[in-house]
Amino acid sequence: MEKNKPTLHDVAKVAGVSIATVSNVLNNKSTELGKKTRQKVLDAIDKLHYEPNQFARSLKTGQSNLIVFIVPDQNPFFTEILTELNNECQKHQLHVAVVSSEENELRQQALIETFIARNVSAIILVPVKSKLKFKKEWSQTPILTIDRKVDGTYLPSISVDNKKAAFDATQRIIDSTCKNIGLLLANPDISTTSERKSGYEQALKKNNIKLDEQLIYYSNQQLGTDAQIDSGYHATKSLINKQVQAVVATNHLLLLGALQAIKESGKKISQDMIIIGFDDSYWNEIYTPKLSVISQPTKEIGRVAGEMINHLIQGENVSSIELNTKLIIRESCSFIKDKSL
Amino acid sequence: MEKNKPTLHDVAKVAGVSIATVSNVLNNKSTELGKKTRQKVLDAIDKLHYEPNQFARSLKTGQSNLIVFIVPDQNPFFTEILTELNNECQKHQLHVAVVSSEENELRQQALIETFIARNVSAIILVPVKSKLKFKKEWSQTPILTIDRKVDGTYLPSISVDNKKAAFDATQRIIDSTCKNIGLLLANPDISTTSERKSGYEQALKKNNIKLDEQLIYYSNQQLGTDAQIDSGYHATKSLINKQVQAVVATNHLLLLGALQAIKESGKKISQDMIIIGFDDSYWNEIYTPKLSVISQPTKEIGRVAGEMINHLIQGENVSSIELNTKLIIRESCSFIKDKSL
Repeated sequence: MEKNKPTLHDVAKVAGVSIATVSNVLNNKSTELGKKTRQKVLDAIDKLHYEPNQFARSLKTGQSNLIVFIVPDQNPFFTEILTELNNECQKHQLHVAVVSSEENELRQQALIETFIARNVSAIILVPVKSKLKFKKEWSQTPILTIDRKVDGTYLPSISVDNKKAAFDATQRIIDSTCKNIGLLLANPDISTTSERKSGYEQALKKNNIKLDEQLIYYSNQQLGTDAQIDSGYHATKSLINKQVQAVVATNHLLLLGALQAIKESGKKISQDMIIIGFDDSYWNEIYTPKLSVISQPTKEIGRVAGEMINHLIQGENVSSIELNTKLIIRESCSFIKDKSL
Repeated sequence: MEKNKPTLHDVAKVAGVSIATVSNVLNNKSTELGKKTRQKVLDAIDKLHYEPNQFARSLKTGQSNLIVFIVPDQNPFFTEILTELNNECQKHQLHVAVVSSEENELRQQALIETFIARNVSAIILVPVKSKLKFKKEWSQTPILTIDRKVDGTYLPSISVDNKKAAFDATQRIIDSTCKNIGLLLANPDISTTSERKSGYEQALKKNNIKLDEQLIYYSNQQLGTDAQIDSGYHATKSLINKQVQAVVATNHLLLLGALQAIKESGKKISQDMIIIGFDDSYWNEIYTPKLSVISQPTKEIGRVAGEMINHLIQGENVSSIELNTKLIIRESCSFIKDKSL
């Protein structure tokens, strides 16, 4: 008879602590634990040659326990979602691997096929277009879309109310007494772009401001991280040339490009121009002036995605969900009244 | 006999273009291509029902063609490496999936075992410690370490000259007539930390400045993205309390925390304090004042990693390589002479 491998229980016994404590150490959740307790657990693991190998176990059962998260680019928005998704998936002994489609539809298609052929447990997809060539062989593998949606499929999705988000941003700028508002959008083929455009239009309409298509810019066809920043940069330069004093930049990369163009032009935000971006980051808080943004609930998206994917893997039904965004008002969206300051 | 699937050659023929052009379209490298050419290729792909499925082909040959890139956290430094790594691997029909160890040694160990058991073609590892419990079962799978090194193994590595990098940063600050220099370091257990500390010490010694251990801060034991930013923040607050006027922050996350602490304190960079960070990002250029940093060659690291991993998979030998960093001098590392400005 094969000698039994040591269990979490054995480690707890030898270390003289609870199973929960061992689990906390394994998951690096050691904030509340003393250094001594932590060391006791690590010593017990060493002594028993314990291997916390859920994955090796799962291999025997034929389940891959591997989730593939297909992102379109390196926007920090996705890495923030990933952090919480990882935490949630760990609870269910699911493992997340990230691959990038680089906004290339053919590449996305190949990725989905490859990983389905490799028996991944599920796919979390940020689709590169709102159309997806869905194949019937895929129907055995749970696929969840996040951020962007696809038309005409029954794939469950996690999204945010993009129309309201862009409406809120535009309305806030109008409230700052600005009527000429430039809009920086991503690729026209994705659902988030059309929804955000529609929120912008709705805000203008509500305030009886005539829509000027010349103030709306889409990002370059040549996609990817650098291309998006570049698009935001060139569009904002054009807007500045048109004497536009307000910009809504509908993602983090477009915002970066816009800030670069404003800085180069010598214009000062809050004095000469105002701006609202999308997606919160540490930089927004430490920038001068502090940057106002529409914050998307990245942590919640990650956590809910982990929960939903677990339900799907268990064969349970889930419903699509739309989360709310929040306008975080900092300094960049208001004019300083006294320009001599 | 099964009807032959269309090849790249067939697509090129139908579109009336070269194979290279088809390949460029497939890889989204369409900058130099006209829209018409691109459309011709896409039409031919549609017409022939061509599927660029290298991965499905590779499954038949038993080769996984999957590289796993194990990163320790969500530092943008790794996403930058990833972009170029992806480009390079695509040339060799290799596919990169990223997973995060969250700086947890046990998790790292489990990840390596899991993916080796799943027959990945190779592993690119950013080790969480300079010690690695290497198992002999792993020796069939190429493992390349990048950024950080591990002691006492023969794993090939790509690293940078960290000692020189920190020396250069510290020397630049001394040249700006500052002698009390705070040093923000990551986790003490990784090779990059000890090398950077050693470069800092060397610069002090060369300039006959006495080392003060009270000015050196390591990041919190509780690791991860937020914890690193938090460590940089608290360390810088302490340094400001000690009237220290200069800071070297040895990674992007520590720099973020430092900037937050300085902003909160009401001190002005270039007037009251100077700072040099590590790792270049778009924000450094648009921040006020512009941030001086040690720039690591992320693109080159990614490209060389892709090349080396391809050689290793082919069974060829590779040598470890150390790349150079570059001190990018912007505004944050010099005092403005006239403080009344």
